Amino acid sequence: MEWPDHGGQPDAIRRKFDFAIPEDMIDFSANINPFGPPGWMGKELVNHFEQISRYPDPSYREARKQIALSEGMDTEQVLVTNGGAEAIFLVAKMFEKKRAVIVQPTFLEYERACLHYHLSVEDVFFSLDNEFELSMEAITIACKNRDVVFLCRPNNPTGTVVAEKTIYRLMEEAKKSDTYVVVDEAFADFLPESVPSLAQCLTEYDNLIILRSMTKMFAVPGLRIGYILSNSDFIKKAKQWQIPWSVNTLAAAVVPKMIADKGFVNDTKKWLAEEITFLRHQMNKLNFYMSATQVNYYLLQDLEQPDEMMPLYEYLLKAGIVARHTTNFKGLEGNYLRFAIRSRQENNRLLQALASWRGIQ
Amino acid sequence: MEWPDHGGQPDAIRRKFDFAIPEDMIDFSANINPFGPPGWMGKELVNHFEQISRYPDPSYREARKQIALSEGMDTEQVLVTNGGAEAIFLVAKMFEKKRAVIVQPTFLEYERACLHYHLSVEDVFFSLDNEFELSMEAITIACKNRDVVFLCRPNNPTGTVVAEKTIYRLMEEAKKSDTYVVVDEAFADFLPESVPSLAQCLTEYDNLIILRSMTKMFAVPGLRIGYILSNSDFIKKAKQWQIPWSVNTLAAAVVPKMIADKGFVNDTKKWLAEEITFLRHQMNKLNFYMSATQVNYYLLQDLEQPDEMMPLYEYLLKAGIVARHTTNFKGLEGNYLRFAIRSRQENNRLLQALASWRGIQ
Repeated sequence: MEWPDHGGQPDAIRRKFDFAIPEDMIDFSANINPFGPPGWMGKELVNHFEQISRYPDPSYREARKQIALSEGMDTEQVLVTNGGAEAIFLVAKMFEKKRAVIVQPTFLEYERACLHYHLSVEDVFFSLDNEFELSMEAITIACKNRDVVFLCRPNNPTGTVVAEKTIYRLMEEAKKSDTYVVVDEAFADFLPESVPSLAQCLTEYDNLIILRSMTKMFAVPGLRIGYILSNSDFIKKAKQWQIPWSVNTLAAAVVPKMIADKGFVNDTKKWLAEEITFLRHQMNKLNFYMSATQVNYYLLQDLEQPDEMMPLYEYLLKAGIVARHTTNFKGLEGNYLRFAIRSRQENNRLLQALASWRGIQ
Repeated sequence: MEWPDHGGQPDAIRRKFDFAIPEDMIDFSANINPFGPPGWMGKELVNHFEQISRYPDPSYREARKQIALSEGMDTEQVLVTNGGAEAIFLVAKMFEKKRAVIVQPTFLEYERACLHYHLSVEDVFFSLDNEFELSMEAITIACKNRDVVFLCRPNNPTGTVVAEKTIYRLMEEAKKSDTYVVVDEAFADFLPESVPSLAQCLTEYDNLIILRSMTKMFAVPGLRIGYILSNSDFIKKAKQWQIPWSVNTLAAAVVPKMIADKGFVNDTKKWLAEEITFLRHQMNKLNFYMSATQVNYYLLQDLEQPDEMMPLYEYLLKAGIVARHTTNFKGLEGNYLRFAIRSRQENNRLLQALASWRGIQ
């Protein structure tokens, strides 16, 4: 049996291995807010049950309006999609048969979407020796003779965020060469206030396309809701190619309340900042590398036995901890594991298992 | 403002016209079972709420298994999709850049999906003077030098069903010319027992692809759930091109109970048979043509003033009745209106309005 392509499939992992895995295993492989969904979610879904017997509004007007208001832009700059995944495929369709660059290691679906729509793909790499920053050299390659760049920021699976000044350099280079830049902000909701989203740059850059997901912060990956922000011309064209009614009415119906619940987002950010500090301190003590994440997941490497990540993976699994392998991330090649940041209690269980792997009891 | 492409958009219709439309207008433009969703639907959704915080099982194993069991085939012959729409687009992807035939007038999305994936499209037509049957001539054209035929059975918007012996002729011709036949059975759930689905032909014909929707019978167009039935090789290939997690977990979770509720389906069929007989009798009396539908919608034409369908459309709208225009169905060109079959009380309101249009009060 093959590795699952994505995290969040503990049952598939269980089937893959022939040793016993504790019943109470914890899934650290899916990057989901451990405090979600918010308490109101169930009631809000029930409030909209009657809508399932009607076709969705094909333009998803209300959801788009609320997103636009929250971002300070026009409704015509927003397109709701069936999760971030449909957004990625739709953008690829817009650049069908053209030339793409993907900044690696990153989320797998950019490449899959490019393959689907016959884009030629070149990879450039984040600097693995500089906390996954983007070098000027990579920017130059990314824009030269290429129609579109796919960049994930915050990046998945590293959790790192390309610096703002680097992004401006990229945008300027891209502008010169008529290259579009697709910035996947699926995890931007988790960023501290000091690291703003690039949505503010949309007025300045017509060649910017931002992808978002509401799945991660609100812990509703089962609902499938995401969106695209760009200039209204791009959005209009993308809409023309979208499969009709691709977003479930219930998913669309809860968008306004998700947008409105800033308290939930802020509480999560506050918790996350503390938890990252705590984990970094503990990982340092245990001599594990933890990527310079600013969001709710990170890469981990054993600095004492860097070639032993698969044995560590299995060791953790036997302790009831499911990590995300990195064998199918270009440039990582399995040399790291990815973990979601979960509750303190759950993170402590991971830390205990890592201590135990070190022979510390 | 343009006509909406699809039915089920009474609000868009309201915006299109500057005259007053009664508040209690009835939407006859969406082909949805008026008795649905079944009473258990709300509770069943609530029972699965906890699943929204997990990614859907990417293989949707349980839903596929239940569908396969119900159809007497292998799980590997089933692929669940985001409504019938994703099924259509995914099939088009499998014949990318090849040569398609669409049997018209029919559902609009076949052509849109072919355009999306650069298929060259030729139209053949149902016999408008023979209750939308498929002539031998049309079959010959459909299969000659073509890779795939899109046929809707029961057909939308006519409600008619190509005869079984005609279908066998088509399948045989298609087999000779290595042509795939895509039969959209989105409304097959409504057919009387005497008209079986073509799923039984899958063992005999490797070139058959059947599309289904669970939306219409169970009145859940907002949930977005459909599926493809074919040989396991085709399904495996199609799955490789599908956007990940395209089906909402709640939609997938209610599939087993929908499959199991044969009572709801049978009650609907029984009601429908009576209602079709009633409506046909009344339409005859009023001198309106009603297509030879076997399902929950039909085409209507005024036999006394066949050129007055748009005035009739507006007349009905003022009476609070939303029909589906046919201006964007090839071969119909607005010369008919489509109506869903709704409750007796609602159908009577339509009949009264039609009588009133005739000057009978």
